[in-house]
Amino acid sequence: MPSLDDTTRGRVLFGGDYNPEQWPEETWREDVRLMRDARVNSVTVGVFSWARLEPRPGVRDFGWLDRLMDLLHEHGIGVVLATPTSAPPPWLGRLHPETLPRDADGRVEWWGGRQHFSHSSAVYRRYAAAITEDLAARYAAHPALTMWHINNEYCTADHGDEAAARFRGWLRAKYGTTDALNTAWGTAFWSQRYDDWGEILPARHTHYLKNPAQVLDFRRFTSDMLLECFTAERDIVRRHTPHLPVTTNFMPLFFGQDAWRWAEEEDVVSVDLYPDPRDPVGGARDGALVQDLTRSQARGPWMLMEQAAGAVNWRGVNHPRPRGLNRLWSWQAVARGADAVCYFQWRQSRQGAEKFHSGMVGHAGERGRTFQEVRRLGAELERIGGEVAGRQVTADVTVLHDWHAWWAAEQDGRLSSRAGHPNLLAAWHRALWEAHLTADFAHPEHDLTGRRLVVVPQLYLLTDAAIDNLRAYVEGGGTLVCGFLTGVADEDDRVRPGGVDPRLRELFGIRVLHEWWPLGEGETVGCDGFRGTLWSEEIEAADDLDERIDYRGGELDGLPAVLRRGRAWYVSTLPEPDALRALLARIAAGAGVRPVLDGLPQGVEAVRRGELLFVLNHGREPVTVAVPGPHRELLTGVAVRDEVRLERFGVAVLRP
Amino acid sequence: MPSLDDTTRGRVLFGGDYNPEQWPEETWREDVRLMRDARVNSVTVGVFSWARLEPRPGVRDFGWLDRLMDLLHEHGIGVVLATPTSAPPPWLGRLHPETLPRDADGRVEWWGGRQHFSHSSAVYRRYAAAITEDLAARYAAHPALTMWHINNEYCTADHGDEAAARFRGWLRAKYGTTDALNTAWGTAFWSQRYDDWGEILPARHTHYLKNPAQVLDFRRFTSDMLLECFTAERDIVRRHTPHLPVTTNFMPLFFGQDAWRWAEEEDVVSVDLYPDPRDPVGGARDGALVQDLTRSQARGPWMLMEQAAGAVNWRGVNHPRPRGLNRLWSWQAVARGADAVCYFQWRQSRQGAEKFHSGMVGHAGERGRTFQEVRRLGAELERIGGEVAGRQVTADVTVLHDWHAWWAAEQDGRLSSRAGHPNLLAAWHRALWEAHLTADFAHPEHDLTGRRLVVVPQLYLLTDAAIDNLRAYVEGGGTLVCGFLTGVADEDDRVRPGGVDPRLRELFGIRVLHEWWPLGEGETVGCDGFRGTLWSEEIEAADDLDERIDYRGGELDGLPAVLRRGRAWYVSTLPEPDALRALLARIAAGAGVRPVLDGLPQGVEAVRRGELLFVLNHGREPVTVAVPGPHRELLTGVAVRDEVRLERFGVAVLRP
Amino acid sequence: MPSLDDTTRGRVLFGGDYNPEQWPEETWREDVRLMRDARVNSVTVGVFSWARLEPRPGVRDFGWLDRLMDLLHEHGIGVVLATPTSAPPPWLGRLHPETLPRDADGRVEWWGGRQHFSHSSAVYRRYAAAITEDLAARYAAHPALTMWHINNEYCTADHGDEAAARFRGWLRAKYGTTDALNTAWGTAFWSQRYDDWGEILPARHTHYLKNPAQVLDFRRFTSDMLLECFTAERDIVRRHTPHLPVTTNFMPLFFGQDAWRWAEEEDVVSVDLYPDPRDPVGGARDGALVQDLTRSQARGPWMLMEQAAGAVNWRGVNHPRPRGLNRLWSWQAVARGADAVCYFQWRQSRQGAEKFHSGMVGHAGERGRTFQEVRRLGAELERIGGEVAGRQVTADVTVLHDWHAWWAAEQDGRLSSRAGHPNLLAAWHRALWEAHLTADFAHPEHDLTGRRLVVVPQLYLLTDAAIDNLRAYVEGGGTLVCGFLTGVADEDDRVRPGGVDPRLRELFGIRVLHEWWPLGEGETVGCDGFRGTLWSEEIEAADDLDERIDYRGGELDGLPAVLRRGRAWYVSTLPEPDALRALLARIAAGAGVRPVLDGLPQGVEAVRRGELLFVLNHGREPVTVAVPGPHRELLTGVAVRDEVRLERFGVAVLRP
Repeated sequence: MPSLDDTTRGRVLFGGDYNPEQWPEETWREDVRLMRDARVNSVTVGVFSWARLEPRPGVRDFGWLDRLMDLLHEHGIGVVLATPTSAPPPWLGRLHPETLPRDADGRVEWWGGRQHFSHSSAVYRRYAAAITEDLAARYAAHPALTMWHINNEYCTADHGDEAAARFRGWLRAKYGTTDALNTAWGTAFWSQRYDDWGEILPARHTHYLKNPAQVLDFRRFTSDMLLECFTAERDIVRRHTPHLPVTTNFMPLFFGQDAWRWAEEEDVVSVDLYPDPRDPVGGARDGALVQDLTRSQARGPWMLMEQAAGAVNWRGVNHPRPRGLNRLWSWQAVARGADAVCYFQWRQSRQGAEKFHSGMVGHAGERGRTFQEVRRLGAELERIGGEVAGRQVTADVTVLHDWHAWWAAEQDGRLSSRAGHPNLLAAWHRALWEAHLTADFAHPEHDLTGRRLVVVPQLYLLTDAAIDNLRAYVEGGGTLVCGFLTGVADEDDRVRPGGVDPRLRELFGIRVLHEWWPLGEGETVGCDGFRGTLWSEEIEAADDLDERIDYRGGELDGLPAVLRRGRAWYVSTLPEPDALRALLARIAAGAGVRPVLDGLPQGVEAVRRGELLFVLNHGREPVTVAVPGPHRELLTGVAVRDEVRLERFGVAVLRP
Repeated sequence: MPSLDDTTRGRVLFGGDYNPEQWPEETWREDVRLMRDARVNSVTVGVFSWARLEPRPGVRDFGWLDRLMDLLHEHGIGVVLATPTSAPPPWLGRLHPETLPRDADGRVEWWGGRQHFSHSSAVYRRYAAAITEDLAARYAAHPALTMWHINNEYCTADHGDEAAARFRGWLRAKYGTTDALNTAWGTAFWSQRYDDWGEILPARHTHYLKNPAQVLDFRRFTSDMLLECFTAERDIVRRHTPHLPVTTNFMPLFFGQDAWRWAEEEDVVSVDLYPDPRDPVGGARDGALVQDLTRSQARGPWMLMEQAAGAVNWRGVNHPRPRGLNRLWSWQAVARGADAVCYFQWRQSRQGAEKFHSGMVGHAGERGRTFQEVRRLGAELERIGGEVAGRQVTADVTVLHDWHAWWAAEQDGRLSSRAGHPNLLAAWHRALWEAHLTADFAHPEHDLTGRRLVVVPQLYLLTDAAIDNLRAYVEGGGTLVCGFLTGVADEDDRVRPGGVDPRLRELFGIRVLHEWWPLGEGETVGCDGFRGTLWSEEIEAADDLDERIDYRGGELDGLPAVLRRGRAWYVSTLPEPDALRALLARIAAGAGVRPVLDGLPQGVEAVRRGELLFVLNHGREPVTVAVPGPHRELLTGVAVRDEVRLERFGVAVLRP
Repeated sequence: MPSLDDTTRGRVLFGGDYNPEQWPEETWREDVRLMRDARVNSVTVGVFSWARLEPRPGVRDFGWLDRLMDLLHEHGIGVVLATPTSAPPPWLGRLHPETLPRDADGRVEWWGGRQHFSHSSAVYRRYAAAITEDLAARYAAHPALTMWHINNEYCTADHGDEAAARFRGWLRAKYGTTDALNTAWGTAFWSQRYDDWGEILPARHTHYLKNPAQVLDFRRFTSDMLLECFTAERDIVRRHTPHLPVTTNFMPLFFGQDAWRWAEEEDVVSVDLYPDPRDPVGGARDGALVQDLTRSQARGPWMLMEQAAGAVNWRGVNHPRPRGLNRLWSWQAVARGADAVCYFQWRQSRQGAEKFHSGMVGHAGERGRTFQEVRRLGAELERIGGEVAGRQVTADVTVLHDWHAWWAAEQDGRLSSRAGHPNLLAAWHRALWEAHLTADFAHPEHDLTGRRLVVVPQLYLLTDAAIDNLRAYVEGGGTLVCGFLTGVADEDDRVRPGGVDPRLRELFGIRVLHEWWPLGEGETVGCDGFRGTLWSEEIEAADDLDERIDYRGGELDGLPAVLRRGRAWYVSTLPEPDALRALLARIAAGAGVRPVLDGLPQGVEAVRRGELLFVLNHGREPVTVAVPGPHRELLTGVAVRDEVRLERFGVAVLRP
């Protein structure tokens, strides 16, 4: 199978989405001049070109794209060519209103925006396949073509009638009989027993709480239908260009797709990443999480398909990236495994819904600070990209994450609306990041053999296989730390006996889990040495714990907050950030896992990739960092010995 | 007519909803073992069994229920048998989409939750009657059967076309002519005159404010249609078992039903009560209000049909009941007149929308703290239930409440969104509760003869009959205290001349009510000796007041905040809690009403039921309470003299 | 053309909406007695009378209106007669559901409220024309008739199918070809190219962001369609009474109508104004803005069609007007150019959605404080109205405002949700008001010749003509001050090169606008001598500025916050209120513009109208104000010399 290496060929890709149909052709020539100036070597073309390529049903207009591909090739710029299927032309919805999705309330999602297609519509799928086929046939042999990009940020659910029919088919394939479905969904509750497949609906609006297993399966179905759309197009382009890799761009930690499963269907895993530049340290933390997750899905180098050179336009208040931050965050991505640093988009639009989303060439143009910083970054990446491309990141900690657990937990009718999966994931990953421990992610059924420390911030749903996997991992000598609400439900969102699976209770030394005690806004719970937030639990511990940290004060006084039996830890609250960091650092040390560098100040990040050591200063004040031994700093070419100084938002790439 | 006594037969009922269809039959045997262990003597069965009983149209599957009824009877456990009509099977909505309700926006409320039936649907009513008929016929003679439970928490409004047709019929019956309706609704405003019955709609979405009289009548209609559904089923079961009482379970202080009128149609009044255990004292206050209201509707002992042994799952953050609280709140219900202490549900579900709603047997099972506390409580209730069952509570104060007043006041286009009926009811009832005055509730047209103190927190709408009733009450020597916004509107929500009915103004000595001055968030108004909240009024008083407390400072400086003429008091603001308590205590004393016990500390509650005195400590710290004279404390069997010590959440049941 | 003078005939009109159909005819006689007592000389009749006038299709019932018109005429009260077309009778929606509007989500706006008509419905327009024709024919010659009032507060958008068809026609007339539309809307973005007019939709619900140019044109279309409804009715009444003026009442600073364009179609400009009486000074500021804008649209005297004598009923908490405030705010309107002081409504309704909206005769009736204050005000206006009616207000500053700029800026997908047009307009007008500078408003394409100081708080969209107009104004010696986000987009909402039009950048000395830096809630930015709020900008200034004030601290340290080149100022943040006031006062002084009076304390307002000087105390404490020279105070008739004392909410009308 082709891979990202087939596109990078030893370089780090640098570029972005390029939407030349928004500009007169004379601007194209200006564009390639600036691209060369900025060392752009890859652009993504055609993401939203369907109405241009197929102005009316069945008609094709490829001339402009022919000219563009030639022009880019002439200037040595590779093309990631997109199928345009995420934004069907207005004529499709007009001719075939059944291609439009409906939300849970029955509202039609009309054309006039984007992503207004029903994954379940046979008509949509037919038109999407036809344009993909013609596009692939036409450009398969074009020398500029380096990769395929299918659709864009798949995300649209559908609750309409055609989706209902497909949902029934999906359920039939999964369960075989309505009896099996009734058992899995627990339809004995609230008289929801289905007597016939035709009675089953998508998770539409109801008077009161919906069946959570139905909601869970509807989320699985939605991810799968979108994936079917992806693989159908992928298979078409693959037939034409078996030697070129295929990707589709994820949104970061996006709720709607089981990205573990999707990644298996991609040749290249790519992601769109937009941390908030109003908080450089917080943004770096958020970015690191997504980068680690994406790298883990890719099982190696990955592609930063979209970031913003400046501001985005969808937060309440949108800042540009302050001076130096674009460079810093781009190097952070490379440090954490990216072999491509790309943007949405090359030239900022003057019209349309995203004209206040920044571009590599902003409204201020060539003289603008933003482009000038892009230009300097392009030169750096060109210069030393070859030292990193294709290399593996060193990570000693493994964090488990699973979309099905998230889907099951993120529902109405739970004990707390505050203890959501992404919050927990962020809090635990932050603790590792602040402890300077580099983390990979894994699925709970992945082989964990050889991992030294596995961390589970929260996996509400765990399959039997996953539970056995965790147990085998600990039995095999691994260290495991689990947060609360882990292993509560089985794969049908059925609460396991005792509220947490008995095998896990045995593992951690929990004799009885009497009650869950979620904490409200601003509420904390005392523990020996720290305060817990968000959650607490009334646990009766086994007598043979190896270690415990107890609650102090309140209803849980004297009960265990943290339990350890052997190498298995259970943390029944969310310790405050410093406490969680200290706890994880201690556990890591016990597992033989040390920080990337010792003595790093807060806000400084260090990552090893291949033989290189990246050190990143996320603060606005200069810092000096101890780096034992002699290194060469590749950006400056200067030799450093035992310490390196980093300016505001500074980066050092050190080779021993 | 049968009554609760026919079911309790001298005991306090103890048990809960039992949904065995969620469990394999071997679990049933475990259930009855634990029920006997916990002294459970009554379970409610079949509330959500429709799809199990009628798996497809017209088919019946009663075998499992036969076995269950026999099993329960064998173990001496009585059955409250429910009609399953609150959650129709999926096949009904599929075959007859017109049975599904629509909200004001026109959205369908699909199956997949519960309560997705249109009260107006002839088809629904026919199917509901048929299953009720067959259920009643089959189990009429079963020895386990002790009571009927119709439907569950009736609440679903409908704005669809069949509801529109029934609404027109209801209006025609009420008004006779469109002219009369036009007059009652004030349709001259905004050109809303109806020329033909067919023009009238439910209170559907409009561009701007709706006609408030239409909204009010639509609420009355909704309550009446749901009541028609209830009485239709009640009449069927009553035909089969004229000797057994019939109930349906209310939600506490629920907006959607005129529970005064409903209670008249029930043999037993029952309620579901879920105070928030995060605030034991606040929860006790809320509980006391609902208990007093329910007892008053029942005109005697009532049934706590549902409470939670631990957490519920529909608040933002849901706590379990801390150690001792389940016992305390259960005894509180008994103290305030309950002859049945039941739970939703017996065994916590492992699947479905409410699997995080606690059960008497929680996820932690038999060893869990929750079940252990249930067990101890069951033993206590069994031991001394016979001393209280059937006894009357002593209450010296009467609070007036009326759903029609609430429905009329709770609309858009009012002077304040902050002065809602339930807030006012809670504030005034709290003041009485904190003053250790036990209150009954009454409807404003109920006979008030012999009541010593009548309190009206707020009755925005009062009929002429109600006004005359209040006047006659005062003329007959009663003491009356009214809060602001009382008597503003007549039964058509027509503002009475002068803004408050002239007869009431005369009663209180209000010469002119110049203006209403609602107060904003955090805003208060000075008064002699206290601060007022929520509301104030610019009143020109009569010269012959007997007492007045004036506003101080601000625009109302020197105007009367509280007015008294004879035995009639008017309070034009909401005094802060301590001030309202002191004011009501003073007025009560003047009316010859004394606290249940003198010198009780805050957070301790005392109630007399029959000859027993209940003393309840809602605090976490032990207290010692003075109780003049010798008593025997029934829970411990210990003799006490002049004082009794109560532990955290402690209960004393004292017999002189 | 007729004008307001034809109705006022040298008086100030005093009165209000009168809805006698809500009352029995005996109340009418009481009404005219009280009207005469209060010196009411004008009432508005028939605004919501359609269902009364046309109780079923085609039937007419004019008898009651004949009697009413005669009665009013007998008592010397003029009638502003309204077409009743803002609230169609129920039978229209029932017979013709296509006359009902739909919102962006597709929800029908049913009858039962008001304004439930689709501007695009041919059937609605036909019925509206017919009732208007008959009304005009019947009362054209009635001696009581003094003015026509068309419809009421036009505001209803429609997203339904008939609106879609009209939208396409409107676009076709504007653009001629779909190519031109595609260019203007930038449909190359997100594949939105339209191949056929039939593909175009109203701005209906979409999955993600809508096309902003489509939204902008849909807002223009909505304003134009409503205007078509207005002019159609206007033309009918004008045909019958060419000598009488025609108006329709605006809502204050209402988003939905391009009131510049509408005003050109009216003989009289009228407005409904409801400042919040909970904040007398803030309400006065808000009122002044609307009054200045309305006067500028009218190019002279205007009509206060609706205000509230006491409370309104649509805020969360609604206060009455405290003692004296109704008088003060009424005189403020006169000071700022009103020749009519009218209310909604004469007699407060006892039924319907607005029964808690106050009336001139409130629920308290004749003895109520509200009516007594109305009565005193009526006498004052009658006594000295002749001294002001028809006179021009003196204003030395011009503020530019344009609905199209607002419509373009108020969309999703912008850099900040906090920097909205009305906030900016209010902040800048407040600064002028607090600096005692009287402002007119103008459209950015209006002739600015001779204006001394032009202020642009924010005009995100400026046409080429407007930009050239501003430049010519400055070149002609005018002083211009512009706030940020001005001149960013052209008339199609296309971002201008460099982010702000190059001609404007040249004018202000902005070499490069690198980035916009919006500020979050509670965030401020340091500047030399003050703090900025809401927004900041990263600007590279030209070398030849004449003056600059720099940012201090943070990312923008040392960059210019305020720039001046010659007489052109650019302000890239929103200075805190005191700083903006000081800045504008300084710039005004430089432009030769002085305050109305020197040394006025805050909260006191002074305005010159004709030869009169109005001085208004918006505070609750008395003040003494220096007024050079001798004057006669007209309300008291007292001569004043060099200073005048104003009581709480006091008014002085000074004639030299």
